[in-house]
Amino acid sequence: MEFSQYLPIWDKLTPDQQNRIAQAIDYRKVSKGTFIHDSSADCLGLLLIRSGQLRTYILSDEGREITIGRLFQYDVCLLSASCVMPDMQFNIMIEAEKDSEFWSIPACLFKNLMDASLPVANFANGLISGHFSDLMWLMEQIMWKSLDKRLAAFLLEESALEGTSTLKLTHEKIAAHLGTAREVVTRMLRYFQGEGMVKLGRGTVELTDLPALKKLDP
Amino acid sequence: MEFSQYLPIWDKLTPDQQNRIAQAIDYRKVSKGTFIHDSSADCLGLLLIRSGQLRTYILSDEGREITIGRLFQYDVCLLSASCVMPDMQFNIMIEAEKDSEFWSIPACLFKNLMDASLPVANFANGLISGHFSDLMWLMEQIMWKSLDKRLAAFLLEESALEGTSTLKLTHEKIAAHLGTAREVVTRMLRYFQGEGMVKLGRGTVELTDLPALKKLDP
Repeated sequence: MEFSQYLPIWDKLTPDQQNRIAQAIDYRKVSKGTFIHDSSADCLGLLLIRSGQLRTYILSDEGREITIGRLFQYDVCLLSASCVMPDMQFNIMIEAEKDSEFWSIPACLFKNLMDASLPVANFANGLISGHFSDLMWLMEQIMWKSLDKRLAAFLLEESALEGTSTLKLTHEKIAAHLGTAREVVTRMLRYFQGEGMVKLGRGTVELTDLPALKKLDP
Repeated sequence: MEFSQYLPIWDKLTPDQQNRIAQAIDYRKVSKGTFIHDSSADCLGLLLIRSGQLRTYILSDEGREITIGRLFQYDVCLLSASCVMPDMQFNIMIEAEKDSEFWSIPACLFKNLMDASLPVANFANGLISGHFSDLMWLMEQIMWKSLDKRLAAFLLEESALEGTSTLKLTHEKIAAHLGTAREVVTRMLRYFQGEGMVKLGRGTVELTDLPALKKLDP
């Protein structure tokens, strides 16, 4: 029952509730690049991340993407169980950015627990508040922050996540994270290269002047 | 105790909880233009709207605005009590767009009720889910929808709210709603005027071709 460490309210559940979760919970191990969830097609349930890195994003009718957030070990994600929340109408995708392991608690069971248990209801409150706060942060970035700053912040974050200054990333991929067009990213990266902040290779971006990048995103 | 009609879970509260709300609830009547709330400065509490029209918006460091949503009669707003939600860090403003009346339940009392009452906790869940959904919708608009469509949709919505096709709105004000620059709005409105869709006056925008505007925002 290792998963219980990944569910912060485990100790506040009754033995019966714990049993129902233990019987219904699903464990999955997926490789990098696996598409995990499309909330228009199904309602996966509450995700408990054991390892790896997942990306949540939205998709326009024309196929443009923007990254909403990332999930790491010990993160709990309710966006994959949006059907349990009243008045939730939107379409969130989830994919594995690295080899990943996670558990999922079926949406209908989680909904039952929310309706029966005060700790679960308030736990869900905290999760959805956190998701709201992340989305608000992202919107402020998009609205008020210029693309050079967002790009610098994204490259620095990737570098920290991958533990390397040479990132394997196409311009297309970066554009999908930032919700903009590939051409715009290419232009900005060339400008960064001209300033000596990055060195562009075939499918790679090498960060060559971290202090200058950090200055862009203080 | 007229306010109890505006709080959907009133009947699910204990008499003691009802009493505590009745003693702590605050009623306010404000004129059009009154600034009501800045979540960086205080935590007003849960709002129950009795009449009028309120606008929630965010503000950039440079003073740019974008409208997040509108509140009308029977709406309940939790964004003005963001301090009761864990992990909520953002700054939301609220102002009256028309003469308005509302009640507020102090944030600390509402937090106590959430911690003690399952119906209140799940009611809060519904509210925050609704706010999340609205924000997601807005973000999709901003990301994927071109400004001409957003402007047409805004003018049509204003016209419906005000019950007139001649809107008293400066270009500045429209820009603040849409989160863009005044110059951009002026250019687009002139284009609309050239197409015969609007007629611009001093501080007014008259909608002269509703079908054409509706075609832009189907």
